Amino acid sequence: MTPRPVLKGTLYGVGVGPGDPELLTLRANKVLAEADIIAYFAKEGRRGTSRTIVDSLIGEGRNELPMYYPFTTERHVTDPVYVKETYEFYEASCATLDTHLRNGKCVAVLAEGDPFFFGSFMHLWRRLVPPHACEIVPGITGMAGCWSRANAPMTFGDDIMTVLPATLPADKLAARLADTDAAVIMKIGRHLGKVRTALTSAGRIDQAIYVERGTMSGEHIMPLADKAGDDAPYFSLVLLPGNGRRI
Amino acid sequence: MTPRPVLKGTLYGVGVGPGDPELLTLRANKVLAEADIIAYFAKEGRRGTSRTIVDSLIGEGRNELPMYYPFTTERHVTDPVYVKETYEFYEASCATLDTHLRNGKCVAVLAEGDPFFFGSFMHLWRRLVPPHACEIVPGITGMAGCWSRANAPMTFGDDIMTVLPATLPADKLAARLADTDAAVIMKIGRHLGKVRTALTSAGRIDQAIYVERGTMSGEHIMPLADKAGDDAPYFSLVLLPGNGRRI
Repeated sequence: MTPRPVLKGTLYGVGVGPGDPELLTLRANKVLAEADIIAYFAKEGRRGTSRTIVDSLIGEGRNELPMYYPFTTERHVTDPVYVKETYEFYEASCATLDTHLRNGKCVAVLAEGDPFFFGSFMHLWRRLVPPHACEIVPGITGMAGCWSRANAPMTFGDDIMTVLPATLPADKLAARLADTDAAVIMKIGRHLGKVRTALTSAGRIDQAIYVERGTMSGEHIMPLADKAGDDAPYFSLVLLPGNGRRI
Repeated sequence: MTPRPVLKGTLYGVGVGPGDPELLTLRANKVLAEADIIAYFAKEGRRGTSRTIVDSLIGEGRNELPMYYPFTTERHVTDPVYVKETYEFYEASCATLDTHLRNGKCVAVLAEGDPFFFGSFMHLWRRLVPPHACEIVPGITGMAGCWSRANAPMTFGDDIMTVLPATLPADKLAARLADTDAAVIMKIGRHLGKVRTALTSAGRIDQAIYVERGTMSGEHIMPLADKAGDDAPYFSLVLLPGNGRRI
């Protein structure tokens, strides 16, 4: 493909990768250099992970648009208050972005990992595209950053790989883990005890690798069996490498 | 993370992404600029996809090491001749790489997509590491390149995503497709007819997106239901986007 220009009046969903700023793509770096507005999600009063990742790549004096999440982190995602406040937040964020795009601005929205693999960017995208033009700049996913750092080749030959949210019930997790070659368990957080139970039940606890803050400062990687306690931060996941064809 | 130097006597597994050279990471670009030797897999007499992807990033006069696959593409992966010739090919390739590494060279091996997500690099890695130092530079996977180009957000909320090889029997494919939120079917090649049957059986044929040569020249993207015929090249896959929580 010939290099593409960065266009006005266009929404860019920019994957900023798993944490290490060297893991942005050349395309992402170019879009960030040329965008009129750099938008990102953050908690009120924080800079946000995606914005922090690109610190070394963005100069001073840029036009930035932080989008602060409403205070709903203590609420369950099915709680009507969570749904209402989050809905209104996305609507309001999109109204602002829509105005900039209609004014011909090039707007880059930062997305941790890849814009189309989990994350909040998709909630903006589905409101704004159409009518607006958009380019998705794929990013290195958190899981790929983690398996690279863990020295864990994930899939060989005809392996099946399953990406599972740790929010699943233990019995469902165990059944899926027993019936796949490779697996990635995302969104560990406070579910680590349940994940251990499921892996043990599936007979695979000894193959599991725990990765905390992969590619970021404060990175910790260890066999899950060696991890003390069931505390895990948001940026943690469990890898179960595949066992496919080796020659 | 602070920027890391590119080191001598070290093996770099460099993900070159799905095809578009702008989708290499900044880290991959730096490693390629500084490596003493750039090694890659190719068919005899061809330049190979991974080497072609980085054409615009690598200057003249570099020390290149093509590794030519034996002529086994017409044989099945379980054929003893395939296994023997492929085994000997990896052993011989690693003997050459080992010599360069022992001589203190910085060796970059190109890997299509991501080095630890399918592909041949892992067969080198498991022979060379240890004793040699290694850094895996993750790459944008083929599937991420494809879903970005297809405007297909893949996973929302607590979606489960399953990566399936098209080589599975139709009934097993259908069962997996019926029991996951999102799916990516890899290695389509001559299996497209069977993949259609499995998607139809799972009641999901109308959600499937066919992507051929995603992010490369000659890219074609369409609903699978609209694709005429069952011919598909090696670089094709089928996406089944998830249907998780939307707010």
